[in-house]
Amino acid sequence: MSKEKPSIPKGTRDFGPAVVVKRNYIFNTIKRTFEKFGYLPLETPAMEQLSVLTGKYGDEGDQLLFKILNSGDFLSKTKPEDLEQGYKNITRKVAEKGLRYDLTVPFARFVVMNRNEITFPFKRYQIQPVWRADRPQKGRYREFYQCDADVVGTNSLLCEAEIVQMINEVLTALGLTDFTIKINHRGILAGIAEAIGEKGREGDICVVIDKLDKIGAEGVRKELLERGISESAVAKLEPLYTLEGTNEQLLEQLQSILGETAEGQRGLADLREVWQYLSKLNSQALTASNASGIPRLMLDVTLARGLSYYTGCIFEVKVNNVSMGSISGGGRYDNLTGMFGMPGVSGVGFSFGVDRIYDVLEELMLFPDSSQVGTKVLLVQFDKDSEFYALPVLQQLRDAGIAAELYPEPAKLKKQMGYADQKSIPYVILIGSEEMASGKLKLRDMQLGEQQDLTIEEIISLLIK
Amino acid sequence: MSKEKPSIPKGTRDFGPAVVVKRNYIFNTIKRTFEKFGYLPLETPAMEQLSVLTGKYGDEGDQLLFKILNSGDFLSKTKPEDLEQGYKNITRKVAEKGLRYDLTVPFARFVVMNRNEITFPFKRYQIQPVWRADRPQKGRYREFYQCDADVVGTNSLLCEAEIVQMINEVLTALGLTDFTIKINHRGILAGIAEAIGEKGREGDICVVIDKLDKIGAEGVRKELLERGISESAVAKLEPLYTLEGTNEQLLEQLQSILGETAEGQRGLADLREVWQYLSKLNSQALTASNASGIPRLMLDVTLARGLSYYTGCIFEVKVNNVSMGSISGGGRYDNLTGMFGMPGVSGVGFSFGVDRIYDVLEELMLFPDSSQVGTKVLLVQFDKDSEFYALPVLQQLRDAGIAAELYPEPAKLKKQMGYADQKSIPYVILIGSEEMASGKLKLRDMQLGEQQDLTIEEIISLLIK
Repeated sequence: MSKEKPSIPKGTRDFGPAVVVKRNYIFNTIKRTFEKFGYLPLETPAMEQLSVLTGKYGDEGDQLLFKILNSGDFLSKTKPEDLEQGYKNITRKVAEKGLRYDLTVPFARFVVMNRNEITFPFKRYQIQPVWRADRPQKGRYREFYQCDADVVGTNSLLCEAEIVQMINEVLTALGLTDFTIKINHRGILAGIAEAIGEKGREGDICVVIDKLDKIGAEGVRKELLERGISESAVAKLEPLYTLEGTNEQLLEQLQSILGETAEGQRGLADLREVWQYLSKLNSQALTASNASGIPRLMLDVTLARGLSYYTGCIFEVKVNNVSMGSISGGGRYDNLTGMFGMPGVSGVGFSFGVDRIYDVLEELMLFPDSSQVGTKVLLVQFDKDSEFYALPVLQQLRDAGIAAELYPEPAKLKKQMGYADQKSIPYVILIGSEEMASGKLKLRDMQLGEQQDLTIEEIISLLIK
Repeated sequence: MSKEKPSIPKGTRDFGPAVVVKRNYIFNTIKRTFEKFGYLPLETPAMEQLSVLTGKYGDEGDQLLFKILNSGDFLSKTKPEDLEQGYKNITRKVAEKGLRYDLTVPFARFVVMNRNEITFPFKRYQIQPVWRADRPQKGRYREFYQCDADVVGTNSLLCEAEIVQMINEVLTALGLTDFTIKINHRGILAGIAEAIGEKGREGDICVVIDKLDKIGAEGVRKELLERGISESAVAKLEPLYTLEGTNEQLLEQLQSILGETAEGQRGLADLREVWQYLSKLNSQALTASNASGIPRLMLDVTLARGLSYYTGCIFEVKVNNVSMGSISGGGRYDNLTGMFGMPGVSGVGFSFGVDRIYDVLEELMLFPDSSQVGTKVLLVQFDKDSEFYALPVLQQLRDAGIAAELYPEPAKLKKQMGYADQKSIPYVILIGSEEMASGKLKLRDMQLGEQQDLTIEEIISLLIK
């Protein structure tokens, strides 16, 4: 047995009770909304075949996959010359499974494997950890939860409108008010590329525009030129970074910029339809505005999102006045399951970044007291008599559905009170000889520091509310 | 991109919506009880250092650990001659992390790492998957959930009594009535070993007795003899397999069998104290009996439980009249964190087997309808007019907290109804031209096949109950 001080792998975390309880508050808020909109939970295994995972996330992603050694004596199948042929070769022989890297590929895999049993449109949500062998740094972990909802098997833009609603509802329920749901459309980006004379180059343009926040207009210009976008195209593009106005005004301006480009027209038509749905739904996302008076839902033509598989609307959510990246994002894809040979499955999905939401709620002190679900009352014992007296009281409290504990030993009062304090238990019941004689127990409100002598029935009706 | 049909690793499972919802019903029932008794949730990473995991589960367990390849080009550190030195050597170089094998070792690791921040007694529960590279077979998986509750840092037998109560409460809440909570004590087993003239041999005796159900008294006799237990000792042991009577009678009989053996006396005293606690708590586990009239809580001197780290009371739960192994078990250990160099931490814990409980509830058809949390009502659309009419209705339903969906396309009625059917949506709202004219919507009860014309307000008050 190792006696050295144990540790956990870098980039991973233990979540103690106080943190789990707060995280569950976020998860439960999200689940409640997902379910109200007809999304149902799916869970897939942590391990996937490497053949399922590899080649789906680009070369960089492949390198970040955690691979699992085949069990058993894999070396009997490995010869010294394999080693000389390098990493990929031996890896293939010794590892056939990996930890999932995201929830999208397992979802696509599930849809393909169960295509004959699934009724489309298929709305699923999935809240599970994923693993990436990234270099750990502040806010970036090797194990973290993703929280996805996708609907596949329909082109209806009602789904996009509902995603905007779900984002708005979840963040509002969490107490956030000053946030912006940015929306754009890949067709708009393609139309812009065409309109500035760089038809088909929207991929390159998106990758660079995506960095506008980080590297600024000058940095974007430099990188676009490096990627071979012409001077004149860049010059035509730049005014778009600072387009201003209401959503309706933005759509008008885009109409004239995009002219007759087919992709641009598709993008505009889709966005107008999303707005129409939201307006028919009387969506709060349209009517509510954030602290600076800007509507929560804003068209942002500089929103590009890196992932190449998006083909329609794209979303991203930013909490204003907090230094934190986007806390939610997503978009429509035309061909999710094409990677597994099942074409023609269009869908749209999005994801909440729970670690970031957690940090934002902490920073803004938005976790409600009611997210603390611990013990409501601790019974303190002084000796065997008070312990025996306390036992049926304990049972009565629990029978009433009240989370209650009896400190399991007649320890010093200070120690027992310290326990209540550490566990943030709001009430303590003290049972001394006086209390046993009178039948009135001393109930102490730990926050106010006040005590009352009450019967057990009175205590129950006080605590149960 | 691979176009071959994707699959999942053997021994792993996808859980579709219907199954997740039922599993969550079990998890939530368990959590509710754990929290009522003051246990709080802990979550640890899926990956642990191999130095933490190795040597804790015996040689057999070590071989069942899933090991994770170090990221990066580990081969640069591996030379051909390493291969010739065999499996263990190269494994140590290429893998430093593994997937957790249970929740007990990570819990011990957490306690040791956080010993200065934790307030003892520390009550935690943990519901997370674990991974074992076992040969997959019916009912045995390579990824499965464990569901543990432990309290460490106190010797109080109130904890044992509360474990009995929690088991009884969870199973009762799940609708089970005919089950037996078997209890025994390692001291009783040690005392028996001493009393039959094989002092100190209780380890061997436990391992064999544990198989009594499977191999019968004759098989046990054979194996005990093989392990060097004397003929006369086995002969003295055998009457114990069939001890009969009430718990009080069993304790009386044991009193005379165990005589003055110190360990035996310790076991008897502990068990009597557990009974005393339960009796003061008016515990249902004492008063309720199962279908054959036997109390739910039964002393069983043949209960041994294989794990060598138990030192006090041990538990196991069996559902009667169902061919299924134990669905819960646990016990007290004196030295949980000793494996990490922190001695003197006594605790007691137990675990629910969720996969088995799931199968039992399915077999006995005990999943309530209310465990189905899906969409309550589907709005069917026929054309753009009815879709637009439906949108504010949809919003009103959701604003009232009712899980509602609008089928996102004007598909054939049969297809939309099939969707409701497949998703087990209990109500459908049909909005045709007549309904739009009258303002009375057609609400169809899918189970009864009955339709009513109702206003949206009437529908909401009907669905909200």
